[in-house]
Amino acid sequence: MNENIYDLAIIGGGPAGLTAAIYGKRYGLTTVVISDSFGGMMSTAHKICNYPGFNEITGMDLSLKMIDQATNLNVDIVFEKTIDIQKENDFIINTDQRTIKAKKIILAIGRARRKLGLPREEEFTGKGVSYCATCDAGFYKDKIVAVIGGSDAAVTAAIMLSEIANKVYIIYRKEQLRAEKVWIDLAINNSKIEILYNTEVTELLGSERLTGIITNNDKNISLDGLFIEIGSVPNTDLLSKLDVLLDKNSFIVVDKSQKTNISGIFAAGDATNKTDLKQVITASSQGAIAAYYCYLEIKG
Amino acid sequence: MNENIYDLAIIGGGPAGLTAAIYGKRYGLTTVVISDSFGGMMSTAHKICNYPGFNEITGMDLSLKMIDQATNLNVDIVFEKTIDIQKENDFIINTDQRTIKAKKIILAIGRARRKLGLPREEEFTGKGVSYCATCDAGFYKDKIVAVIGGSDAAVTAAIMLSEIANKVYIIYRKEQLRAEKVWIDLAINNSKIEILYNTEVTELLGSERLTGIITNNDKNISLDGLFIEIGSVPNTDLLSKLDVLLDKNSFIVVDKSQKTNISGIFAAGDATNKTDLKQVITASSQGAIAAYYCYLEIKG
Repeated sequence: MNENIYDLAIIGGGPAGLTAAIYGKRYGLTTVVISDSFGGMMSTAHKICNYPGFNEITGMDLSLKMIDQATNLNVDIVFEKTIDIQKENDFIINTDQRTIKAKKIILAIGRARRKLGLPREEEFTGKGVSYCATCDAGFYKDKIVAVIGGSDAAVTAAIMLSEIANKVYIIYRKEQLRAEKVWIDLAINNSKIEILYNTEVTELLGSERLTGIITNNDKNISLDGLFIEIGSVPNTDLLSKLDVLLDKNSFIVVDKSQKTNISGIFAAGDATNKTDLKQVITASSQGAIAAYYCYLEIKG
Repeated sequence: MNENIYDLAIIGGGPAGLTAAIYGKRYGLTTVVISDSFGGMMSTAHKICNYPGFNEITGMDLSLKMIDQATNLNVDIVFEKTIDIQKENDFIINTDQRTIKAKKIILAIGRARRKLGLPREEEFTGKGVSYCATCDAGFYKDKIVAVIGGSDAAVTAAIMLSEIANKVYIIYRKEQLRAEKVWIDLAINNSKIEILYNTEVTELLGSERLTGIITNNDKNISLDGLFIEIGSVPNTDLLSKLDVLLDKNSFIVVDKSQKTNISGIFAAGDATNKTDLKQVITASSQGAIAAYYCYLEIKG
């Protein structure tokens, strides 16, 4: 740990943050990464097949490789939750356990899972309701589960669950899934998967734990588990003490150099408005670019 | 081979092109990659330490992994040189051996090495003058060589050459190398490497092959090999029949979606003006984004 002031503090340990750390450190900047969930959303991916260089890798394995790479470069890793960030002469980052100072900040704060917003959703979370198939699939051996959503995340979650559970519903509000075609084909040809289109969940049933759902077309479906994969929203809560400009969907507005509207604050990855294609490869690229322009500002 | 018309033809087989192919194919597009040098400039890198997921990998190995990944997805690979591209209703791509048609094009045409522009440079190419240390270092065991340039490419070439040659000069026109600090430190602490700052080569000496150089400060240096690593320029020659907009440095102008000014033509990677940070990770990211917006245009 650096008791003084870091050149660069990176908030968030997903692909954007870890790549920024690898680049920042290789540019000779004293660098710290602060995160309470290394790998970020990447670490929860069951299978990643489109990250160039790996035919197929779990999100956890790719996370570990990137963490290992940063660690080998002697990047400081702080496994703590950031509470807030203040700008004085330098930046003051308060975690739940300490205060860290830095000259430049890269916000690589990613996204959090979107909730259905139904009554009892919070009560049933961990009791039949899950936001992470990779984490929780193992609890549903030979059970009946449903995945809500139509994205890559939803469809790959369903495919993965079909290897463990007995029956998997995909429940999607639109007429057509919007995942990559390879995933859709795998789901459609999977005898354990049944896709319910134009369907929304209106009620969660159960006493101690979830036992079923009611849908907008008045179906009552018995379920042991419900996986909610309906997208995500940027984790911008911790920015309350900074006037970082957000767009109308709460994504951080960045320029070509990943600079925000606040001098010295950069942002990279899924929390930015840089591209709609939120992927490991696009997040990592933004992390590299952010670190490069931090370096130019510090050394330039 | 698709005898009819591809959804997507990608010109160039470096990281941008191969990533675009992986994404395009996974989106269900019929996809062909046309290139006469798979891996592109990446394949000539002696060592890549900043591509997230690999602590250290040769450019050739990373190229092979990406090619393997595209091949496993049944992307069509055409190992031919593209001569020109014409736009009719669809795009007509003429290689040195055939004509290929496609609905959308991604230009992932990368860059070519910049030349010194000295008399006899072409005559000595392959006879002491090289633009690829990874390719040609093996010829200089226990010899005296020089690398011209101050970038990552130049300094890593010098470090690699020091493992083979007896003595390596780095010749750079400025006061300070501009490579990553880790590379500069390794070069400065390497007893086989001598760095000549504020120095430019003014003359190439030799009869049958290069035997030495003269510099702007009138030094006469005996050399067996000279490696020229002074950057690169976009490979835009083959665009002569298209009115693709270039910036003042000949980079292809792209928007946020990697679209060029010509409908149906996208561009990705080092040949674009998207970022000054020309790296495997940034090129790959652009390839993914280009394929995504091609897919939206075709299926949307």
